[in-house]
Amino acid sequence: MAKEQKQVDAITDMERDFAQWYTDVCTKAELIGYTSVKGIFILRPYGYAIWENIQQALDQRFKATGHCNVSMPMLIPESLLQKEKDHIEGFAPECAWVTMGGSEKLEERLCVRPTSETLFCEHWSKIVHSWRDLPMLYNQWCSVMRWEKTTRPFLRHREFLWQEGHTLHATPEEAIEETERMLDIYADVCENLLAMPVVKGVKTDKEKFAGAERTYTLECMMHDRKALQNGTSHYFGDGFAKAFDISFSDRDNQRRTPYETSWGITTRTIGGLIMTHGDNHGLVLPPRVAPTQVVVIPVAQHKPGVIDAASALCGRLQDAGIRVKMDASDNSPGWKFAEYEMKGVPLRVEIGPKDMDKAQCVLVRRDNGEKTFIPLSGLEEAVKNCLEEIQANLFAKAKRNLDEHTFDISTPEEAKAIVEGEGGFLRSKWCGSRECEEAMKERAGVSSRCLPFAQSGTEGTCPVCGKKCTTDIYWGVAY
Amino acid sequence: MAKEQKQVDAITDMERDFAQWYTDVCTKAELIGYTSVKGIFILRPYGYAIWENIQQALDQRFKATGHCNVSMPMLIPESLLQKEKDHIEGFAPECAWVTMGGSEKLEERLCVRPTSETLFCEHWSKIVHSWRDLPMLYNQWCSVMRWEKTTRPFLRHREFLWQEGHTLHATPEEAIEETERMLDIYADVCENLLAMPVVKGVKTDKEKFAGAERTYTLECMMHDRKALQNGTSHYFGDGFAKAFDISFSDRDNQRRTPYETSWGITTRTIGGLIMTHGDNHGLVLPPRVAPTQVVVIPVAQHKPGVIDAASALCGRLQDAGIRVKMDASDNSPGWKFAEYEMKGVPLRVEIGPKDMDKAQCVLVRRDNGEKTFIPLSGLEEAVKNCLEEIQANLFAKAKRNLDEHTFDISTPEEAKAIVEGEGGFLRSKWCGSRECEEAMKERAGVSSRCLPFAQSGTEGTCPVCGKKCTTDIYWGVAY
Repeated sequence: MAKEQKQVDAITDMERDFAQWYTDVCTKAELIGYTSVKGIFILRPYGYAIWENIQQALDQRFKATGHCNVSMPMLIPESLLQKEKDHIEGFAPECAWVTMGGSEKLEERLCVRPTSETLFCEHWSKIVHSWRDLPMLYNQWCSVMRWEKTTRPFLRHREFLWQEGHTLHATPEEAIEETERMLDIYADVCENLLAMPVVKGVKTDKEKFAGAERTYTLECMMHDRKALQNGTSHYFGDGFAKAFDISFSDRDNQRRTPYETSWGITTRTIGGLIMTHGDNHGLVLPPRVAPTQVVVIPVAQHKPGVIDAASALCGRLQDAGIRVKMDASDNSPGWKFAEYEMKGVPLRVEIGPKDMDKAQCVLVRRDNGEKTFIPLSGLEEAVKNCLEEIQANLFAKAKRNLDEHTFDISTPEEAKAIVEGEGGFLRSKWCGSRECEEAMKERAGVSSRCLPFAQSGTEGTCPVCGKKCTTDIYWGVAY
Repeated sequence: MAKEQKQVDAITDMERDFAQWYTDVCTKAELIGYTSVKGIFILRPYGYAIWENIQQALDQRFKATGHCNVSMPMLIPESLLQKEKDHIEGFAPECAWVTMGGSEKLEERLCVRPTSETLFCEHWSKIVHSWRDLPMLYNQWCSVMRWEKTTRPFLRHREFLWQEGHTLHATPEEAIEETERMLDIYADVCENLLAMPVVKGVKTDKEKFAGAERTYTLECMMHDRKALQNGTSHYFGDGFAKAFDISFSDRDNQRRTPYETSWGITTRTIGGLIMTHGDNHGLVLPPRVAPTQVVVIPVAQHKPGVIDAASALCGRLQDAGIRVKMDASDNSPGWKFAEYEMKGVPLRVEIGPKDMDKAQCVLVRRDNGEKTFIPLSGLEEAVKNCLEEIQANLFAKAKRNLDEHTFDISTPEEAKAIVEGEGGFLRSKWCGSRECEEAMKERAGVSSRCLPFAQSGTEGTCPVCGKKCTTDIYWGVAY
């Protein structure tokens, strides 16, 4: 009953109400579940399976670059959190506090980790002694908590899943290199796994992480032309190390203070995937990250031999290393088509009696609806090629959206007209002052996204104060 | 300096002080780190890598039996936790409570999950409608919190990592079958991955999980002959489903209440590994779960060609799918030998100039110290065979310990004499009364471990009341 209903529950048109379209996709594609605590969501099996694929891609890359996983506590004593001044200022307003253990009031309240720099530093202060112990290249997969007022599925949870890498190095150069290396890994996964083109750059001081000297970021453009910050990497200098008394004896027997980094990417990436590739039929997943890459649907499945033919086809694709499933349930083909479109399965393979007579099957692409008949003899190759084409097409479409909606502007008013119109990223020069940055927020409603790595080097003028300057900056409306 | 010291930091003799030996291994093998919150531990890279291998083995088996992973909230509103009466009674004394979010006092306090039955049930009450939605076969990997008074590394943490499976079925038979299937998976992983023989059975009512109708358990014997409960699987009947108003419309259109199970295994398994296989040189890891299966140590590494020969050897083993690392650091060979013995690496391969002349290398087994020279031409096969032998030998040794220290007893005093002497599991008949179970605790200092699946069927007498009965039961001193 409930399932039969689904095909008529159309989702909101994205052009009419993008925010409602987004929420519809999150729930109708069964990615997320609501709970009785505001802002804390369930990742349902399908949503979690996407996260598992992202995890796996990242974890392989982290390990290949020498990092190892650890598990740190989920609770941080208040006194520990306070050791680094900027850090506590940034996080205190969003901390959830454990104050009771069993029936007893705790002597010191404990914060549910919003991030774990303080825990890693405390640990390192005990175990780092010599240059031989460096670098420390740690990562953990966990959930963290930030008690935010406004919440949205994937984009802003009070509790969210992420990985947080934390590393410690003998020199600032090495730490900065690490910060950049990890940003590159995020960019690789965004572009090549998730088909999400990125703008790489550095955050302004106003937008950087609490306690960091420098924050690198990836900025992605969503379908509505807003920006999603997707993966950040922070260089801390020796600030935390000093606050936590971490030192090591160097090769020359001198005691030195090491340099720290941290970097993280979260489940908000899934929100980004939805808003980059989704359409009015629901989710659209790039094949490389899709939990199910191909769904096989037998047509007229009551006819003799159809189920067997579909199973055989499914088995062949599985043997070829493709993530495939068959749906031979008693739901109607129409229901099944709508269901797997909603779930964004990249490719549908249909086979019915007529196809069997012709030794063929039908491929239907989720990204553009294209339908092709292919001979069964060439099944595996055709499906693999088709999946690669879908992957490439999704990236190209997203790249086009980014390129066609990145505008050079020279006044806040120009910026305002664009973001209130068709939307986009705004590129300008920037004099470097926080006043001008804040003026852009007030007058154009945009925040600085990043100082892109790709700097043109040309001279121009700051759109606010008109001073001559060379720094390129991106502005946008951010999620 | 710190590292050089390690080889002289001998660990406590296990025969002299087993508890201290255990703690020494946990810290000296770098499995665990202490934090400033009592009872909350860090899993250091080496400890976490063992957990990752256990995870992987389990996760594959869970998925192969149709389960999918999800992520549920870490916080449970007090009112939700209270919905099932037995459950809250069991867990309330151990709950850690979040009472503040940011600077505001919460309207309802939130418990950091000690286990998640209530969250799964609340979710299912929203999404389960028809027989088509069943079974629900869910699992999650996460950490949970139980605010215990007495804590020990791995064995009793206030926060520990685990997986918790939760499933929902149309019939009690199907749910019971699931409960047993998952216990079998745990047993398979314990015996075949971890080389830990198990006694499978059912818990008494006194020892079962809060809210369960029946709890299945695996009991393992540690080196000191104490019992470690290692993996449990619970059948809940329809108690939770009723408390949470979960129902489904069956094929005949009748509304019915489904039946629930849950099952979990935790990082205490690593404590079990240590206490099953460890010795006075430190940890001993079965090859199948060891993060590093083989360590290659170049001997006289300053001599020409030695490092290259060792690298080549290491590369060959890696290509053969063996988890191998080489240690070419400037620590002394003696330091290296002690270090990898402490860490329980199953096999050490040494190669030096003399070996190179003879086209051979040396294998040294961690489990029994056996040293063999093998020709380089047969390297891969010899190493693989040797790892399998070590795996089998560790299981056989542990099985011998279990078999030789399982005693039939007929009075509490007999039981007491054994556990206060050489220790062991005690097998007897049991009349089924809680009074007699409690009397065994008072008079012999043992708790019931389980009613083994392997029941002899013979008649005997209860060791406490002397009544005639047929049920076999195991008693022991438990961690």
